[in-house]
Amino acid sequence: MCRWMAWFGQPVLIEELLFKTQHGIVDQSLHARMGAEPTNGDGFGFGWYGAGEGPGVYHSVSPAWGDANLRELAAHIESPLFIAHVRAAIGSPVQQTNCHPFRRGRWLFAHNGYLGGFRDVRRELMLAIDPELFPDVHGSTDTEVVFQLALTFGLEDDPVRALERTVGLIEEVARPHGIEDAVQATFGVSDGESLWAVRYATTGTARSLFASSDVDTIRQLHPGNERFKRMTGDDRVIVSEPFSELPGVWHEIPESSAVHVQRGGVLEHHDFRPRVPAAAGVRDA
Amino acid sequence: MCRWMAWFGQPVLIEELLFKTQHGIVDQSLHARMGAEPTNGDGFGFGWYGAGEGPGVYHSVSPAWGDANLRELAAHIESPLFIAHVRAAIGSPVQQTNCHPFRRGRWLFAHNGYLGGFRDVRRELMLAIDPELFPDVHGSTDTEVVFQLALTFGLEDDPVRALERTVGLIEEVARPHGIEDAVQATFGVSDGESLWAVRYATTGTARSLFASSDVDTIRQLHPGNERFKRMTGDDRVIVSEPFSELPGVWHEIPESSAVHVQRGGVLEHHDFRPRVPAAAGVRDA
Amino acid sequence: MCRWMAWFGQPVLIEELLFKTQHGIVDQSLHARMGAEPTNGDGFGFGWYGAGEGPGVYHSVSPAWGDANLRELAAHIESPLFIAHVRAAIGSPVQQTNCHPFRRGRWLFAHNGYLGGFRDVRRELMLAIDPELFPDVHGSTDTEVVFQLALTFGLEDDPVRALERTVGLIEEVARPHGIEDAVQATFGVSDGESLWAVRYATTGTARSLFASSDVDTIRQLHPGNERFKRMTGDDRVIVSEPFSELPGVWHEIPESSAVHVQRGGVLEHHDFRPRVPAAAGVRDA
Amino acid sequence: MCRWMAWFGQPVLIEELLFKTQHGIVDQSLHARMGAEPTNGDGFGFGWYGAGEGPGVYHSVSPAWGDANLRELAAHIESPLFIAHVRAAIGSPVQQTNCHPFRRGRWLFAHNGYLGGFRDVRRELMLAIDPELFPDVHGSTDTEVVFQLALTFGLEDDPVRALERTVGLIEEVARPHGIEDAVQATFGVSDGESLWAVRYATTGTARSLFASSDVDTIRQLHPGNERFKRMTGDDRVIVSEPFSELPGVWHEIPESSAVHVQRGGVLEHHDFRPRVPAAAGVRDA
Repeated sequence: MCRWMAWFGQPVLIEELLFKTQHGIVDQSLHARMGAEPTNGDGFGFGWYGAGEGPGVYHSVSPAWGDANLRELAAHIESPLFIAHVRAAIGSPVQQTNCHPFRRGRWLFAHNGYLGGFRDVRRELMLAIDPELFPDVHGSTDTEVVFQLALTFGLEDDPVRALERTVGLIEEVARPHGIEDAVQATFGVSDGESLWAVRYATTGTARSLFASSDVDTIRQLHPGNERFKRMTGDDRVIVSEPFSELPGVWHEIPESSAVHVQRGGVLEHHDFRPRVPAAAGVRDA
Repeated sequence: MCRWMAWFGQPVLIEELLFKTQHGIVDQSLHARMGAEPTNGDGFGFGWYGAGEGPGVYHSVSPAWGDANLRELAAHIESPLFIAHVRAAIGSPVQQTNCHPFRRGRWLFAHNGYLGGFRDVRRELMLAIDPELFPDVHGSTDTEVVFQLALTFGLEDDPVRALERTVGLIEEVARPHGIEDAVQATFGVSDGESLWAVRYATTGTARSLFASSDVDTIRQLHPGNERFKRMTGDDRVIVSEPFSELPGVWHEIPESSAVHVQRGGVLEHHDFRPRVPAAAGVRDA
Repeated sequence: MCRWMAWFGQPVLIEELLFKTQHGIVDQSLHARMGAEPTNGDGFGFGWYGAGEGPGVYHSVSPAWGDANLRELAAHIESPLFIAHVRAAIGSPVQQTNCHPFRRGRWLFAHNGYLGGFRDVRRELMLAIDPELFPDVHGSTDTEVVFQLALTFGLEDDPVRALERTVGLIEEVARPHGIEDAVQATFGVSDGESLWAVRYATTGTARSLFASSDVDTIRQLHPGNERFKRMTGDDRVIVSEPFSELPGVWHEIPESSAVHVQRGGVLEHHDFRPRVPAAAGVRDA
Repeated sequence: MCRWMAWFGQPVLIEELLFKTQHGIVDQSLHARMGAEPTNGDGFGFGWYGAGEGPGVYHSVSPAWGDANLRELAAHIESPLFIAHVRAAIGSPVQQTNCHPFRRGRWLFAHNGYLGGFRDVRRELMLAIDPELFPDVHGSTDTEVVFQLALTFGLEDDPVRALERTVGLIEEVARPHGIEDAVQATFGVSDGESLWAVRYATTGTARSLFASSDVDTIRQLHPGNERFKRMTGDDRVIVSEPFSELPGVWHEIPESSAVHVQRGGVLEHHDFRPRVPAAAGVRDA
């Protein structure tokens, strides 16, 4: 169980969303309401686009609520597009290399959920990672394996399709092990130009996922905020769990679907249908 | 808001109490029931008597529930007398020098609660610390100041009396600042030969504090534990919050009182009455 | 023994100076050449002016050479004015609240050196801190005390004069204790508009301190760097230890002197003469 | 480049060897003399046999010289057999799961050296790990892969033979990649009953390794130590680098050889000859 959020719009200080928003993600690290576990204190991370080449990432093993550096960075880094994540570890160690978002080149990747029976399928899934990418697996989470598989299956060309293949492969590998809940997930992906979010579970209800409805959403969430008052209709927030309970402000992203957010706040909905990658059967032969 | 526990009896692996006890203190770090805050994830510590000179202390800024070293140490250190503490920071930084228990020579000290308006009285209280002890203040918590004051007022001769003087001084200093809740506390103290626990609040209800009733308590709490089955009546546990809800197993330590646990499980009750130390009025003149 | 550096000029990615400069400060954390100790692995920090209110600070207890977050931040934060510091602890704990630069409001403060016999004078010096500022002492280093004293004596109005008073007070307090090496220091100070650097020792040779000579310095230090090729003559670097041994590139700042760097690369030299603050004798009465 | 040491003999407080020995391993973390790199500040660990089931391990990402917990634990844990290790990372992250010694069941494993071209062979070597063991790979170092391979090839039955097979496999896998320095190593292994040490390099000179000559060694190294004065001839120390330069005190373990230390200080020498494991060619078919 984790929580993540993404911002895409006008450049803002990261703290506007992390700390100055009622029931924002740092507050959720201590008191999540919609998850299986209320505490997400096993590390934190955010990745942002701004100065320098590609996205920067900050990963910490401290709980988000008590990390002095996080407050400093959030108050002094401005970005038009960032993904933040609070972690509740289930089994794998609390270490920076297990913190989200993961990155390769211009790409960021975050995940709320888990792979069922990961110990039983880990080796087989790691073998399916492109051997060129394999040396870049530094941690031990299921999410990093998902990310490397998605890169293997074309994330950089078509993120949603690559994730459909990745999920298809994971379900294929899990089946003979008798694992029913192969994938439980919301995913967040960006290349700095677009933002994608996916909601899917092999079985049962997928983890919650919401998008802000329109520009008024943001204003209502930050009534006294001068910056947001000047906003145009170009900003979007995607969240695991709504920042507040204001009615009409959030719309739920349906299960087995993906959204694609583009510059200007444009939001497209797509179906999400796992498919077994063609090469999976003969991979690593 | 914090939680602490102390064990005094036969030598046990620390994990028996920390991890193998239902609703033990590590579980309380994530899900405390009786406190103002359910999460105590801002650091951890324990101090124990065993091999080597005086007590050893282990302090960690990780939440207790996720600290791999804590599991290792608890599973491989045996001790007849130890104090463990989980911290919920209120204002002061999450750093090892702010973790309990604090130590000087043979003495350990832990605290659940706070000093009201600490920012306003901190300087004045620090001036009242014996100048010889002053250089050993390494952190920035109220508890460390309480400990150094108690040492100043004779903790090593008579811990309860020294704490009565310390609390008296703090209330005296707080009064002109209009601070009503000067002291909210349970304290745990040991020199390796005895264990003392104090429960007191200047105003309102003091933090909860319980002692195990008798040897059967321990056995009921650990039904399958071979080691505890062989126990004599010599063991005592003091806890901020009972490990379980078994009726008759715990007795509450009354407010404004102290208990003194001696070898053999002997437990004496004393009143706890704050008194202004003689020198307080003229200190630092 | 520590090392620090400051940049004031065109906005640069912090990594240009920290990582991409031959024998830069991160390299010095592992292999300093001019100091008493070659290793400065007891924490790291930098403070920078850029987005958001006042300077941001990042403090880490990891050695600078191995801190993954530091590489990320340095590669993605751009600033026209920043101070970076690597620490070699002498006695006080390795914790974030002991990392430089220290900050208050718009002000940053870093120090290479030490206060002689600090344990003996710590209490007396802390009593001389303005009681309003006292609650903001969070760590346990001599440097934080120096900074709070300098704030007490007018740092925000005239930094060099305030440091002259601070050093005067420290020498005054140290004398009756028979401490000869009361102050050994280079200091770096900024308010985001100017940069000040001081070099002074009560006795013996003060820690080394250098300023870059002119714009060509920077270009010579970074021969392949496109950004620096486009530079005007407005950039200055101040360093504890030169980045390279290129002759003519650095000029040493004399002992018992201060430099004031203003926008446009203007550099003024001043004498630095400790003076006992008028109120020192009667402070805390 | 790393450093390790092992003690096998009478129970001692770990600090006797770590801190109270001239040029001991903690000193070597800051000032190693015989290695390629003088600083080993990228984490620390020790594993010890004593109370509780199997060995305990303590892993820290702080440099050994500045870790307050390490001093506490070393001063209060007593053990007849322990392995300590200071790390200088080459490429892999500084995280607890990359700290030595590694453990499985009763077994501890430490390594000084590296696998040549590890990025190129990592995947192939990981595939050769017993699939049952694969899920227990938590970190990203070459050493952890060596340990899991050795377990795969029978470490628990015959450690030296298992390491000969492991090294044989690694050299076999490295050859087609054109890697000449496939293995550079000293290894330390224990099951709590015996201690094994191996010195081997595929090419060039293997990392240094020494054994204490006899009981007088230990006494000479600790002239004022009462405990060591009472010593019988049963104690042995194995070290990457001698604690001191006392002549006659240490004997060098020859290259391509192994020593087996048994209770009572008995020390046997063996040849060490890499051999390709029978199954290696058809593994993972």
